[in-house]
Amino acid sequence: MELIQQFQHRINQAVSELDIGHKQPAELYEPIAYTMGQPGKRLRPLLSLLACHLFGGDIEKAIYPAISVEIFHNFTLVHDDIMDKAPLRRGQQTVYQKWNADIAILAGDTMFAMAYQYALKTDPALVPKVLTVFSKAAIEVCEGQQLDMNFETMKTVSIPEYLNMIRLKTAVLLGASLEIGAICAHALPEDIAHIYQFGILLGIAFQLKDDLLDVYGDQDQFGKLSGGDIATNKKTYLYLKALELADDVKYSRLTSLYSPNSILPVEDKIRQVKQLFDDLDVKEQVGLIMDDYYYQAMLALSNISIGSARLEPLQDFAQKLFNRTY
Amino acid sequence: MELIQQFQHRINQAVSELDIGHKQPAELYEPIAYTMGQPGKRLRPLLSLLACHLFGGDIEKAIYPAISVEIFHNFTLVHDDIMDKAPLRRGQQTVYQKWNADIAILAGDTMFAMAYQYALKTDPALVPKVLTVFSKAAIEVCEGQQLDMNFETMKTVSIPEYLNMIRLKTAVLLGASLEIGAICAHALPEDIAHIYQFGILLGIAFQLKDDLLDVYGDQDQFGKLSGGDIATNKKTYLYLKALELADDVKYSRLTSLYSPNSILPVEDKIRQVKQLFDDLDVKEQVGLIMDDYYYQAMLALSNISIGSARLEPLQDFAQKLFNRTY
Repeated sequence: MELIQQFQHRINQAVSELDIGHKQPAELYEPIAYTMGQPGKRLRPLLSLLACHLFGGDIEKAIYPAISVEIFHNFTLVHDDIMDKAPLRRGQQTVYQKWNADIAILAGDTMFAMAYQYALKTDPALVPKVLTVFSKAAIEVCEGQQLDMNFETMKTVSIPEYLNMIRLKTAVLLGASLEIGAICAHALPEDIAHIYQFGILLGIAFQLKDDLLDVYGDQDQFGKLSGGDIATNKKTYLYLKALELADDVKYSRLTSLYSPNSILPVEDKIRQVKQLFDDLDVKEQVGLIMDDYYYQAMLALSNISIGSARLEPLQDFAQKLFNRTY
Repeated sequence: MELIQQFQHRINQAVSELDIGHKQPAELYEPIAYTMGQPGKRLRPLLSLLACHLFGGDIEKAIYPAISVEIFHNFTLVHDDIMDKAPLRRGQQTVYQKWNADIAILAGDTMFAMAYQYALKTDPALVPKVLTVFSKAAIEVCEGQQLDMNFETMKTVSIPEYLNMIRLKTAVLLGASLEIGAICAHALPEDIAHIYQFGILLGIAFQLKDDLLDVYGDQDQFGKLSGGDIATNKKTYLYLKALELADDVKYSRLTSLYSPNSILPVEDKIRQVKQLFDDLDVKEQVGLIMDDYYYQAMLALSNISIGSARLEPLQDFAQKLFNRTY
């Protein structure tokens, strides 16, 4: 894990060098400094550096594109929090709550442009390829967010539709982070395809874990309210799986609990939905599916034409990520 | 003007090739197709092609970066209209009004990423330079919009502060459009600096014209409500100049008309502010300053190390733009 700590240190250093707190107009840059300064996992740039290292590249060639992905990810959170009316993010007030929606829109837009500025700081010969991957992922993330919003008002969502949404909203950016790192190390096209696929499958497993942790995670460690997805009637994998497994009685019980007209106090609603999930063995069922995505991800990784010793840091990291309880 | 029509035709063709109306999710792409399909002036891409042609470049190398600037510009309008709560744009409903703010945020974000995708379609060797100029301008446009929002709640705004705001919000994108066209034609650095400066000065003149037309333009032709800036207490150059020229009585009359607590019907307010502007000769005064920016712009253009015959299309176009009554 020493390598990971070393990379994390480099990432934190590069983020601190963003040096935006003093820029003018302050109304625009303070929310950006606030967002970028929050102690997030900075998972995506780490994936970029790990992929670059995997293919024997110089991580200094990947560091700016890596930071670029992190800035982009944070931008999407700032805008998503407006749309989701989320009060908290990483245990702190969201930008739109602390300031207002207009500031959050504009700070986000600026971050998006900053993300490109950072990617442009790498070797010019790498820029077109890196930005092509980056821009495609950016558009897909927006498509995923739109599908997620559509699902709110749709009566039924199928499990394949849900998987496609989380692939776009979450997994493609993990895939792109890895792909960008691999491009910076001049990896072979087929290996780039494998590592992208690894990112997609890991990303889906990662999101299923998120869905599970929202209901079954530790509130203090996870930094979000437990059962928040249930409270907001979010059609997560757990909910969709529960509907699939439910008999007629439980099906109508669950859909009526998720009705926007439900007058039940939120704590009672969460408890009753959780009870239904437990009755239907949803935690175990979703756990099995998540494990399968994780296994497929590891398989994609092992297809890369490189000595197994070099794969270890990324394998270890994926495992650590997967075993997180927060 | 034949050259301009030919370039406009190429731009309209490239915009129609965007081919986004059928893309999924429809909730995301319909507002984008709606925005891009509106009959705007498409001024910025035209400036890119004219600059490319000026320096003897192949406009096919500049067409995608040119469209990229147009997509970016439209994205900023979609987001600005949310912040400004604008009901109409180009005589049609704004995206946030026709759909909602969430859709407008996300459609805008997608357009921003699409803008980069288009710029990436040019010669890879040009990409780093073009995108560096583009990203810098994008950030400055956001800074300008933030300053514009700040001005709403500031008691006093100085004329230099206002000029800096419109430079960032409007002029830098015209400058960047020209600069990008020049880069695509491999122009000399000093000539790139001159054409950028031409764009900045023309952009400021252009915005002063906009401020004038909002009060004195023809409503049907201009596509906006006459006096809209007055109705929304916008501190335009006209308002700031009027304050500068006013005696104590007129100063307090004007500031009280602009008070958010004013209970005057909006038509009366517009008429009374216009009367004050007329009494203070504001139209003529602002007209003189605008003319000076236009003259300085033409001077910057004439500094370019190229035969004067080649400069003609851009000079003609600037003049046509400047003489618009809508």
